[in-house]
Amino acid sequence: MSAEVRALVWDGNELRILDQRLLPGRTTWIRTRRMETVAQAIETLAVRGAPAIGVAAGYGVALAARERNATVATIQSAIVRLASTRPTGYNLFHVLDVMRRVVDRGGADLPGRLLRRAIQIHRADAKSCLAMARFGLNEFGLEESVLTYCNTGALATGGIGTALGVIKHAFRHGRVKEVYACETRPVGQGARLTVWECVQAGLPVTLITDNMAAALMMSGRVQRALVGADRIARNGDTSNKIGTLSVAMLAYQCKVPFHVVAPITTFDSSLRSGRGIPIEERDPAEVLRITPGLEKFPEVRVWNPSFDVTPRRFITSYITDSGVVRPPFHF
Amino acid sequence: MSAEVRALVWDGNELRILDQRLLPGRTTWIRTRRMETVAQAIETLAVRGAPAIGVAAGYGVALAARERNATVATIQSAIVRLASTRPTGYNLFHVLDVMRRVVDRGGADLPGRLLRRAIQIHRADAKSCLAMARFGLNEFGLEESVLTYCNTGALATGGIGTALGVIKHAFRHGRVKEVYACETRPVGQGARLTVWECVQAGLPVTLITDNMAAALMMSGRVQRALVGADRIARNGDTSNKIGTLSVAMLAYQCKVPFHVVAPITTFDSSLRSGRGIPIEERDPAEVLRITPGLEKFPEVRVWNPSFDVTPRRFITSYITDSGVVRPPFHF
Repeated sequence: MSAEVRALVWDGNELRILDQRLLPGRTTWIRTRRMETVAQAIETLAVRGAPAIGVAAGYGVALAARERNATVATIQSAIVRLASTRPTGYNLFHVLDVMRRVVDRGGADLPGRLLRRAIQIHRADAKSCLAMARFGLNEFGLEESVLTYCNTGALATGGIGTALGVIKHAFRHGRVKEVYACETRPVGQGARLTVWECVQAGLPVTLITDNMAAALMMSGRVQRALVGADRIARNGDTSNKIGTLSVAMLAYQCKVPFHVVAPITTFDSSLRSGRGIPIEERDPAEVLRITPGLEKFPEVRVWNPSFDVTPRRFITSYITDSGVVRPPFHF
Repeated sequence: MSAEVRALVWDGNELRILDQRLLPGRTTWIRTRRMETVAQAIETLAVRGAPAIGVAAGYGVALAARERNATVATIQSAIVRLASTRPTGYNLFHVLDVMRRVVDRGGADLPGRLLRRAIQIHRADAKSCLAMARFGLNEFGLEESVLTYCNTGALATGGIGTALGVIKHAFRHGRVKEVYACETRPVGQGARLTVWECVQAGLPVTLITDNMAAALMMSGRVQRALVGADRIARNGDTSNKIGTLSVAMLAYQCKVPFHVVAPITTFDSSLRSGRGIPIEERDPAEVLRITPGLEKFPEVRVWNPSFDVTPRRFITSYITDSGVVRPPFHF
C-alpha cells in the first residue's frame, strides 16, 4: 500500500534516497553519509518535490556536521551549497534557515542537534501531509474523478504527499474514484511517479499527455483538479511545475475547481506577488531527449523553464496544513 | 530550402512517400506501386497531415487501378479500404469522393484518368497552399514571434503547407522573425517535423513542450498562434491534433490571436457543429513509449484521443485558399 512508498529514509547512520530517476522501472536506493551526494541528488532530480527537497536538505546539513573534520564553517558552506541546488522551491530555503539557526545558536553536540532537527523536520512534514489530507477531504463530493499534475505524493514529501496525499485520503473515504495523471513533460513526473504511486495505492489511474487536459476537462470527465506548489507569494500567486498554469487556466474556463495543496511553509511572505519568484531554467537536453536526430541540428533552440506562475485568480482554494484558505485571500 | 521538402512524389511509375516516422534522424522514402502500402503508410503515420493524407489517398486509388487484375470492383474496395485508415480528417473523404466519381463515370482508360486526377489533386493542393500563404500575409504585423502546433508544413500537404506554409511565407516577407514549435505529444509532430522543416527553411525555431504554451503566451513572447485543421464543421468548430484546443483556450485568455489555416475542402458542410466530428482514439503504446517500466503495470489506463475540437469562439480567423474568413461567420 501507499503508506510504504517513501522518498527518504534515515536509517540511524546514513540517508537512503529513493532514486526517482529510475522509476517506475527500478526501485533503487542511493545510500549516503555525504552532504555533496544529497546536493547532487537534488540537482539531478533523484529526489524532487518541494517538501521532499526540504527534508533531504535538512539531512544534508546534518550529514555535513558528521563528516570528518567538520567545523561550523564547513557546515555553513554546506548550507550555501544545498541552497544552490534548486532556486524555485521555498521549503528548501525554509529548512535551511531552520538548520542555520541551530548552527548559529552553537553549544555542545552540534552534529547530534542538527540530526535531531532534520529528523524532526521530516516527521513534521509527514504530519503536515496528514493535516492537509484531513482538511482537504471536505472539498470533494462523492466518487469524483480528479485530475492531477506532476507528482505530489509520498515521493514528493516526507509523508503521504500534498495534492496526491489529499487525493489518496479522499479515495479511501469514497470521495474520489479515479485519477487522471498528466504526463508532465519534459521530466515525466506524472507518467513515471504519480502513475506508479497510484498503482501502489490501488487507486485507478489514467495517464494522459499534458495537451489532453483541455479536451478532458471540456468533456466533463473530471470534477476537480489538484496540484502542489513550490512557492506561494503573499497574494496567492503560485509557482509550481511547468504546465500547472496551463491546467489552471483551462480548469478556470471549463469551470473545474482548481486547488493548490501545500504546507504553510510554502508561503513566502517576503514576496508580494508571483512576479518575484525565480524560475529555474534547466538543460535543453531534458526536452530534446525523446526526439533522436534533433542533436544534428544545433541551430534548434529550446526553452525549458522548470516552473511557471499561476495567478491567484485561477485558484479555487489553497489546502494547507493549517486549514483551507479561500478567496477573498488575506495573506 | 523548404521548397524542396516534399511529403509525396509521383515519379511517373510509382509513388514515393517520405517516411515521416524516421524524421528528423533519417530521410527515407517508401517507394510503392501498391494501394495497400499507401493505406498502411497513412495508418502508421508514415504520411500524415490532413491534406497530405488526401493527396496520398488519391494516388492510392490510382495505384489500385494499375494493379494486376484490377476491376471496377477492386478499385471500389480500394476506396473503402483507404477510407478506413483515419476517421477524423475530411480531405481524405473529399478526395475519395472525387476519385469515386471518376470511377462511376466509367469509360475508356480508367487507370489513366484516375492517375491524372490524382496528380491534379496533388497540384491543386500545392496551389491551395500558395493561396493560403498569400491571403494569410496580411494577418501579421512586422517581425512577429509566432506559436505553432503539430506539423502543418510541406510534410503535411502537397505543397508548402497550411499554417506553417503561411508562416514560412510571412517569414520571407519580414512579417515573422521566429517560430515557437510545440512538441505535440504523443507522436511529436512538432518536435520531429516542424522543427526540421523550419531548419530546412532557415526559419529560427524554438522547441517547447506542450505544457509550456501557457507560460509562453502569458509572458508576451508570441504575438500570434497558427494551427491547421483536420475537419471544420459548418459553424466553424474545428477538429485538429490533440492539444489544439488547449492552445486555443490559452491564447484566448492571453489575448493572442489564434488562426486556423486550412483549404476550403476541410469544411464539412454536412456537420452543423463540432459535436458530430468522429475522434480517432489511437494505441496507448504511443503514450506509454517514453516511460519504460510502465508496461509492468497493466492496470494503468491510457486515454489517447488523436484530435480535439476547438469551439469557434476561440478562433480569431480562418485563413483559407478562398480568402480569410472572420467573425461573424456565415458558413
